[in-house]
Amino acid sequence: MKLSIIFILVFLLFEPARSQQVNGDSAQAYSRVAQSIFEKSLRDSYSHALLLELTDIGPRLSGSAQAASAVEWAERAMRHLGFDNVRLEPVKVPRWVRGDVEEARPVFSRGANGSISSDSTYSICALGGSIGTGEDGIMAEVLEVRTFDELHSLNEQAAGKIIFFNRPMDRSKLTTFEAYGGAVNQRGSGAIEAAAVGGVAALVRSMTTRIDDIPHTGAMHYTDSIPKVPAAAISTMDADALSAALQKDPGMKLWMKLSCETLPDVESANVVGEIIGWEKPDEVVVIGGHLDSWDKGTGAHDDGAGCVQSIDALRLIKESGLKPRRTIRAVMFMNEENGLRGGIAYAAKDRGNEKHIAAIESDAGGFAPRGFGVSSDSVSFEKIRKWEFLFADIEADRIRKGGGGADISPLAQKGVPAIGLRVDSHRYFDYHHSATDTFDKVNERELALGAAAMAILSYVLAEEGL
Amino acid sequence: MKLSIIFILVFLLFEPARSQQVNGDSAQAYSRVAQSIFEKSLRDSYSHALLLELTDIGPRLSGSAQAASAVEWAERAMRHLGFDNVRLEPVKVPRWVRGDVEEARPVFSRGANGSISSDSTYSICALGGSIGTGEDGIMAEVLEVRTFDELHSLNEQAAGKIIFFNRPMDRSKLTTFEAYGGAVNQRGSGAIEAAAVGGVAALVRSMTTRIDDIPHTGAMHYTDSIPKVPAAAISTMDADALSAALQKDPGMKLWMKLSCETLPDVESANVVGEIIGWEKPDEVVVIGGHLDSWDKGTGAHDDGAGCVQSIDALRLIKESGLKPRRTIRAVMFMNEENGLRGGIAYAAKDRGNEKHIAAIESDAGGFAPRGFGVSSDSVSFEKIRKWEFLFADIEADRIRKGGGGADISPLAQKGVPAIGLRVDSHRYFDYHHSATDTFDKVNERELALGAAAMAILSYVLAEEGL
Repeated sequence: MKLSIIFILVFLLFEPARSQQVNGDSAQAYSRVAQSIFEKSLRDSYSHALLLELTDIGPRLSGSAQAASAVEWAERAMRHLGFDNVRLEPVKVPRWVRGDVEEARPVFSRGANGSISSDSTYSICALGGSIGTGEDGIMAEVLEVRTFDELHSLNEQAAGKIIFFNRPMDRSKLTTFEAYGGAVNQRGSGAIEAAAVGGVAALVRSMTTRIDDIPHTGAMHYTDSIPKVPAAAISTMDADALSAALQKDPGMKLWMKLSCETLPDVESANVVGEIIGWEKPDEVVVIGGHLDSWDKGTGAHDDGAGCVQSIDALRLIKESGLKPRRTIRAVMFMNEENGLRGGIAYAAKDRGNEKHIAAIESDAGGFAPRGFGVSSDSVSFEKIRKWEFLFADIEADRIRKGGGGADISPLAQKGVPAIGLRVDSHRYFDYHHSATDTFDKVNERELALGAAAMAILSYVLAEEGL
Repeated sequence: MKLSIIFILVFLLFEPARSQQVNGDSAQAYSRVAQSIFEKSLRDSYSHALLLELTDIGPRLSGSAQAASAVEWAERAMRHLGFDNVRLEPVKVPRWVRGDVEEARPVFSRGANGSISSDSTYSICALGGSIGTGEDGIMAEVLEVRTFDELHSLNEQAAGKIIFFNRPMDRSKLTTFEAYGGAVNQRGSGAIEAAAVGGVAALVRSMTTRIDDIPHTGAMHYTDSIPKVPAAAISTMDADALSAALQKDPGMKLWMKLSCETLPDVESANVVGEIIGWEKPDEVVVIGGHLDSWDKGTGAHDDGAGCVQSIDALRLIKESGLKPRRTIRAVMFMNEENGLRGGIAYAAKDRGNEKHIAAIESDAGGFAPRGFGVSSDSVSFEKIRKWEFLFADIEADRIRKGGGGADISPLAQKGVPAIGLRVDSHRYFDYHHSATDTFDKVNERELALGAAAMAILSYVLAEEGL
């Protein structure tokens, strides 16, 4: 008797995790659905076709004409596929424009008599949200620092200078997001930190582990209590060059000119389409990405991929003849990059009796899926994690704690489990927020598998609840 | 007492798999080594720097001047790093040359009076090993088939025709290698099958899931009992175009000309370097890739990646101050693509008392590692698999049955466990054997993690044996 208990225990413990949680017949049925959706997504490559259309519109910075075209495109694409309740949910977004000029040149203190170099330029771009420099640009000495602490310690040398934040992303980190996390405060807060010590501008090393000549933009912030100074990113190659030049000629100056400015807010919209749940239409699983992109490149990975995968996920479910118990809703959020107005508006909107049971976002690029990251309480996490086995065939069966997505973070704050599609991260920051984030950088199979993974997870959550 | 047994059992079973097999202290020590090697490889990005040098040599088809340069380069690179016993092991290799001409044009039966189109060409390339067409080329009608069975059933229509093998790789397969496996017999045996039914040439749809205008070469074979006919690959886009043209104009002909030929064999070499084991120098773990490549592109993924990773793996071990008990030997095999002479010669060579305990090859491209595939008996497999936990941090901890590599298959036939680095496969056939397999297609982080994975597995096997 005792022995048999041991055997039963041993047997249970050796069984795959799924049998402990998902009924065997269900597990098999869902496995067949998953297999079929993976194959269909690869065969159809529909996400890729959608992404070509979307990126053909061009860069889609909030408030731009292209962002407006993208809203129309997303609505049309979902209507064409026969989704339910396709609609725009209006949201007012900021409008920042880069203008035509972003230029930086060295002014060496020796040799050329302190004149602006005409044959040497640095590859820079304004950071999103920055003020411009005015017609004459800014000419000032440069103070290079690696950290805010270092800047504070050099406090007295900072006044009147351009503060050059040159801490690289740490290449030795196993994921690029970790490396990004360790460097991106320079971009977000560099202008505030620079101005706080009397600096006249912030120049920030681009957020990438690559050494190349491409500047990467991205959001920066001001605070009301500190004067606004212009902020730009410099390519990693030119960050190294400038650093070397400063070693040789510490008295050198930099001249930089930015024509960017912030215009009045613009009416825009989140674009929404769904498959209404037949049993519990008021319980909703959201899947989404953001429709806006930075104005460099065409936002193919960030986040064209997430948008087309969300549309495609609904299509895969619909064309597979699956009718979910609960509603699955695709949302193309507007203005993730420089305001998050779409995500905030979506979560704030009064939706009557509706209850969001989960939200899934793809906003880490159209790369090979590796699993999902979940921000929720432990009970919900375990309920989501029990579906890992559905993703084993594509080796994307690691459902981990932490993650989600910026657009769904306002939902998460209201207690909705937020789930992010986890993908291979190594190439993301090669392209992120730069001119190279274009359609040709996206592999159609990797993109398709991400769409399939979102379809499968949203479908099982819509069927089985949380 | 019984209850405590249960608790112990339960405890043991819930412990990670490693504690069942690898002593806890060892596991921790090796985990620290692994972590340190992953970080060092990412930080140094040495494989990437080596790959730039290697691909700068150009395409490295066996017997070519560039292949000879690559042999010199590999020897120099390993000497520079201070490896032990750096040497060439001579091997005679075939020499096939493409020549300057590979051209195919439609000859429509209507309209242009049966003349060779001057404004329409198909993108083709000779398959490796093919005979040429002669000065005048070949002009013949085209018989399109999807399978050898279909060809046999159309037997009587085949005489005098160019046989067009147009079965696509099945995009719905979850890995591209599966899709490749389902289509590549057309390339390997198409010429034999064509000639067996009286065909005058074989034209084969390129082995890729992409639809583009790039032909992909690769090995084809003849057999002595059947006449040799020329064989070429056609881009997927032009395979579709030709198929459509044949629908409209079944009587159309194709004119094709290939200038390729086989020249006499050439002396070449495998390049070998090692770290001699301090305790059991005669027990050897081989790590390797192949130095030759096809003559399109520069063989960056296939298999420049495997070569530089093998060199880099030894460097990572050496520069980490690790001194393995057994010898770890990097081998750059020659002539994998069109003969396997290097792999065969390596395994055939009399090495006295030496015993190979395992061989690890990287020949699936420089993509993100996912684990290893092992061809061995079950006992060795389980001994290899117990090291999975070392690769968990980079999500490459799936050690599976099956796999290895062509170059190490002659060792496997002698009973040596053969291990292949498993990597993400989705992009491989976008570039494989084509002009696009170039340095810029390789992500340095993905490449570096593969090198680290090879370093770590070869090191633990050299320390712990099998």
